[in-house]
This record gives sequence, structure tokens and C-alpha cells, in this order.
Amino acid sequence: MPELLPRARSSQESVFARMSRLAAQHGAINLGQGFPSDSPPAFLLEAARQAVGTLDQYAPPAGLPALRDALGADLGVDGVDVVVTTGATEAMGLLAQALYGPGDEVLMLEPVFDIYLPQARLAGATPVTVPLRLTAEGGWTLDLDELRAAVTPRTRALLLNSPHNPTGRVFTREELEAVAALARQHDLWLISDEVYDELYFGERPLGLRTLAPERTFTVGSAGKRLEATGWRVGWVACPPGYVGNLTGLRQVASFCAPTPFQAAVAAALPVARQSGFYEGLREGYAARLDLLAGGLRDLGAEVFRPGGTYFLMARRPGWEAGTLVERAGVAVIPGEAFAAREPALKGLFRLAFCKSQAELEQALERLGRFVQADREAEHRPV
Amino acid sequence: MPELLPRARSSQESVFARMSRLAAQHGAINLGQGFPSDSPPAFLLEAARQAVGTLDQYAPPAGLPALRDALGADLGVDGVDVVVTTGATEAMGLLAQALYGPGDEVLMLEPVFDIYLPQARLAGATPVTVPLRLTAEGGWTLDLDELRAAVTPRTRALLLNSPHNPTGRVFTREELEAVAALARQHDLWLISDEVYDELYFGERPLGLRTLAPERTFTVGSAGKRLEATGWRVGWVACPPGYVGNLTGLRQVASFCAPTPFQAAVAAALPVARQSGFYEGLREGYAARLDLLAGGLRDLGAEVFRPGGTYFLMARRPGWEAGTLVERAGVAVIPGEAFAAREPALKGLFRLAFCKSQAELEQALERLGRFVQADREAEHRPV
Repeated sequence: MPELLPRARSSQESVFARMSRLAAQHGAINLGQGFPSDSPPAFLLEAARQAVGTLDQYAPPAGLPALRDALGADLGVDGVDVVVTTGATEAMGLLAQALYGPGDEVLMLEPVFDIYLPQARLAGATPVTVPLRLTAEGGWTLDLDELRAAVTPRTRALLLNSPHNPTGRVFTREELEAVAALARQHDLWLISDEVYDELYFGERPLGLRTLAPERTFTVGSAGKRLEATGWRVGWVACPPGYVGNLTGLRQVASFCAPTPFQAAVAAALPVARQSGFYEGLREGYAARLDLLAGGLRDLGAEVFRPGGTYFLMARRPGWEAGTLVERAGVAVIPGEAFAAREPALKGLFRLAFCKSQAELEQALERLGRFVQADREAEHRPV
Repeated sequence: MPELLPRARSSQESVFARMSRLAAQHGAINLGQGFPSDSPPAFLLEAARQAVGTLDQYAPPAGLPALRDALGADLGVDGVDVVVTTGATEAMGLLAQALYGPGDEVLMLEPVFDIYLPQARLAGATPVTVPLRLTAEGGWTLDLDELRAAVTPRTRALLLNSPHNPTGRVFTREELEAVAALARQHDLWLISDEVYDELYFGERPLGLRTLAPERTFTVGSAGKRLEATGWRVGWVACPPGYVGNLTGLRQVASFCAPTPFQAAVAAALPVARQSGFYEGLREGYAARLDLLAGGLRDLGAEVFRPGGTYFLMARRPGWEAGTLVERAGVAVIPGEAFAAREPALKGLFRLAFCKSQAELEQALERLGRFVQADREAEHRPV
């Protein structure tokens, strides 16, 4: 047989898929992959069941006009500047293809959401990461001077993710203004991954687009907002004038996003906004965050509280993802999964709290038993 | 602003999307884009409505195990060798990324389905087309010597599409054996786009995989088989050993196909096979083919009958796609859309007969009026 291309040979099972597979294999509680245990809201399900059997054929590649209009209204942009994608993953990949290529560098923060690196490489570009550093107080700091120093004549784009996955960091107005100024100074594209835009626990995250509308591509996700990660409806809000090119790439990638779910999301977006759905979502997740964070601390773990997302990061001596899924029956994502450079982030884990209260309690109980068993083993005479 | 990458600047609205847009704009009957007017079968819709609200979160990137198993059983392969994709468009794009790249040539037939060319170029490779030629009898001939002569030391893959879109050509066992022998001789990958595998009007199309299982990637589509083109569920049946690499690329492209529709297709595939659904589909389309082909001939058009797909090609002096959609109120796809080299295929059109009998009759009536108006204009004294 001929050889596969290097880009195919080097591609690996994602850590999220792997941990979900291991979780199923070991009967573990899955605090790894970021999908909710709750069902999507009834108003979304009802709209989808109505669309199935009615809108079953191809949508226009840029998206159903009704959804582009609903997104425009929700995001405060013109619907003609929105492209609907097959989830935010595809949106990020299309932007990589459109905005950078061979010889280019793209700046991103580390810990880095796992797909950014292979997507940049598939586009032919070189990802360059700038670290978020843990402070003594347990926060994650972005050193703006370090970010500025990372720009070279080859830098073409800066990729930001706020609220940031996996740390949950929500960037401040001052930080975003510095990022926007840097992008203007060096004429960089800005890619703002805002899939957790409605999931925050303090102040509402500021969208980078408000500070640099002429160069910011904002990525969003109906799956994250409306608790339907398997429906594959995402979007890009573009600066004016770029929808045509992005649509051209998009139709060659997967032609269009699933039509019935596009229709359902179009109907659900204004309902979610007006009915207080997002407020309810945040309240529910805030309570689960407290539950998980408190429980982990009680077990001796160090917990780094997020400002947004439905993840927290934690660490505890003796805890390791492979051991936890096999011996404690709890799946988590190891910090190394978010590291461009091994062994950065070793010892840290990401845990998802978008799970039911019962699952979180059971996970804590299992971790407690695991700690207990370890202690007993330590004290057993040899 | 920085510039977009050339691959984004050169990407255009697909002719299918454009003709559908023009059809809507001019109130035309859309015989352009290949999506059926009929609804998907009730057993599929029922399965989808059940899955919505139950299986709403991420699926494993390779696909729901139930769907991979159902596909394995349907296609006569091992389910572990199947990767589920977001429609066949994505499947073809992933194979381009995996199997050929910079410096490689990929052979394909012309008329060429429109996405093959940009997908090959996005992968960095050079598409090389070998023509199917219209014979005096109205068939499309593949000159096997011409195909052999097109192989160079840089050729890495051969892409075949049977039943072939847009011509409807179903390749014979002899032709496929020659293709398989050529691929073995030069160690080429074979990509077999078989999305119309259940839509044929004579002998059942032979799958290339049966002749070269070690090197053939077979692409299929639930949208085409089950009349739900907007659901975005496709697949690749791989030679043993390649699913891991393809899954790696797949999860970076769009992570997974829509979960509820994967579940619905898994449930529907055995029902479709056992209930005679495909036989009914073929009978219905054969009748519509007769209706459209006969009507076009009565209007003086030359019609090239397909062996499969739900398209036919035709031509008639004075007919041109732009004029037909605007003045006759009937949208068709111009032959040039399938040409790698202009002005090959000029004067030909592709018409879809996956539309209702009423639509086909109305389209013929409109074309008849258009012919009549033209004749009257010709005979009017100047």
C-alpha cells in the first residue's frame, strides 16, 4: 500500500474521546469530556421534533437564513455576517484554513484546547503558545509582555478563548484591549473562541469583537449554550466582507450543518434569551461547581476556580488520570492534554461539572474511597 | 487587514447552492440541486424523533457503535473498519487529506463532481482528469488506455464515482477490474464514491472494494439512500487498519456527526434493507426518469439516460442554465460546473428527477412554454 500522508499518520484519538471510552470500559463516572448530563431544554427538543420531517434536505452552506438572522439578533451583528458551521470544531478549522498557512505563526494560550494545535498544523502553520501561569493565589495570569514578545514578523493571527478551556479564565477588559491593540499594531487576525459565552460565574465575559470588529472572527456553539453537544450547530460571526470566502471553504468541508437542528436552534435562540434559560443554566452550574470544588478540597485537592465554562482544574499528589479512571472509577482529563510542551501542566486535571448532582456526589464518594484505600495501604505494615 | 489565504480567496459559492438560490429568487422549479422533494421514510423519521431528547450529546468521533455495526452488516464489512462522517462531502475531504498531498496527483473522471477539484487542491495535490466521452449512441465511454496513460510517477490515488454524478454512468465489472489492476500495478489508493449505490435502473452497481479490498475506501451517504440530505450522516468503509488515522483527522474536522441522526440511521438501515424500501425508491425514480426524459425529448432535447443516480444529462440548442432559471422558471445545473477545463461540456445540463411528479410536469410545461415563446419570437416579422 502507499503511505498515508504524515498529517494522517500523526493524528491520534483525542484525549476526550479516549477518556470517554475508558470511562465506559471501567464503568467510571465521566467527569472528562465536556457534555452535560441534563437533556436539552424542552423548547429546543420540541422545535427539533417539529423540524424533523419538514426540513430534512440540504440547507444553504452559509446556514438557514432564519438561523443567521436569529444569530445576528442574539449576537448584535448583521445576520449576513454569520456563517453556520457543523459545530464550533469545524468553525475553528475553517478559520485556520482561511487565515493562516505555510510559513505563518499563530499565537495561542497554553493550556491550549486540544484541537487548536492540530488544526494549525493541518493548515500548514506553526502554533506558538504563550503560557497562562498559575499564581500563588490559584489564579491564571497572562503576562502581556510575554504575549507581545511572542509576536514575530511571521505571526498572522492570535487565537483567544474566553471563557478559557480548560482553566475557566475570563479575560478582563484591560487584557482584551491590550490584545486588540497588539493585533492592530502588527495587523493580526483575531480568532475568538467564545463557545462558553453564556457560562460564567462572575461578570459577563466581554467579546473581543466589541474591541476590534474589523479583524475579529467570533466562534460560538449551540451545543454548549443549549446543552446539545451532539447536534453539531456552531457559527462564526465575521467582520463584514468575509462570509463568501468562509462559505466557500465550508461547503467543501461538510456542505452544511444539519438542517433540522439549524431550524430548531433558530427557534430556540430568542426563547432562551427571553425566558431566562441562560440565567438558570448559570445558577445550576454555580451550585454544582460549589459541590465539586468543596468536595475535592475536603479530599485534600487544590482547586482552581473557573470564572466561566463548566470545567475546573485541580491537582492532588498521588492522583493521575489513568489511575483514577481504572482504580477510583472517575474519568478526568489530564493537564498534559492541554500542553504544547510536555511536561508542562503535569499533575493538573480538568474535571467537568456539567454532570448531575448525583453523579458529582458519587464521583466524590468514589474519590474519597480511593484516598482512604491509599491511606490504609500506606499504613499497612510491610 | 491581513490577506486571506489563497485557498480561501479562490473558494466560490458552489453551483448547487447558487442555482438553488436563483431558483428561490425567480420562483423557479428546482431541478438543479440533488435533494428529493419527498420526505424521508416514516421509519427513519420516527427513529429520529425518538433519538432527539435521548442521544443529544457527542458521539465517539468514529461514530456510534450501533451505527458502525449496522453499516458493517449492510455493507458486508467489519463495523470496526467504518468511520461515520458528517455527510459524504466530509468523507471525501478527509480522504483527500489522508491519502494525497503536495506533489501528488490524483486521477478523476470528467465530468467531475464539483467538490473533488477543490478538495484535492486544499489537500495540496493536483487533480488530473480523464474524460468520459459521449458516444454517437448517447452513452458515456471511459477509454481505459487514456486512463492508463494518465498515470505518472506522481499519481497517488484514483477517485471513482459509480453510479457517476452527473452522467449516471454505472461502470462495468470489466472497467472496474481494469481500474483495480491499474491501481495494483502502480500502487495507487482507490477512493470509491458510491453515494448512489442504491439508486440504479439496470444491474446493481459493483463496488470497487470487492475487487481491491486492500486499497479501496468506499464512501456512502445516508442522506442519499434515505432521502434526508440535510441530516449529514455519511461514512467511509476503510481497508483494515486505517480507521484510527481517519478518525484522528475526523475529530479535528467536525468532531462527530449529529448523534440523534446517527442513532436514527442505525435503526433505519436494516429496516430499509428488509422492507424493500430501496426497491420502492428505484421504481419511483424510474417512473420519474421516464417522465422527465420523455418530456424533454418531446421538446426537442437530446437526453442521455443514466444507469443510476437521480440525475440525467441533456442538451438542446438555445437552452442555457442562466436563461432557463430566469425566463423559463426551471433551475438546472450547467455542464460547465462539472468541467475541469472550460469549455468542455458546454451546452449540456444536469437535471434532477428526485422531485415530485407534479414538479416534473410543471417544469416540462414551463420549458414547453419557453420553447413556444422562442419559436414565436423567431417567426415574428421584424
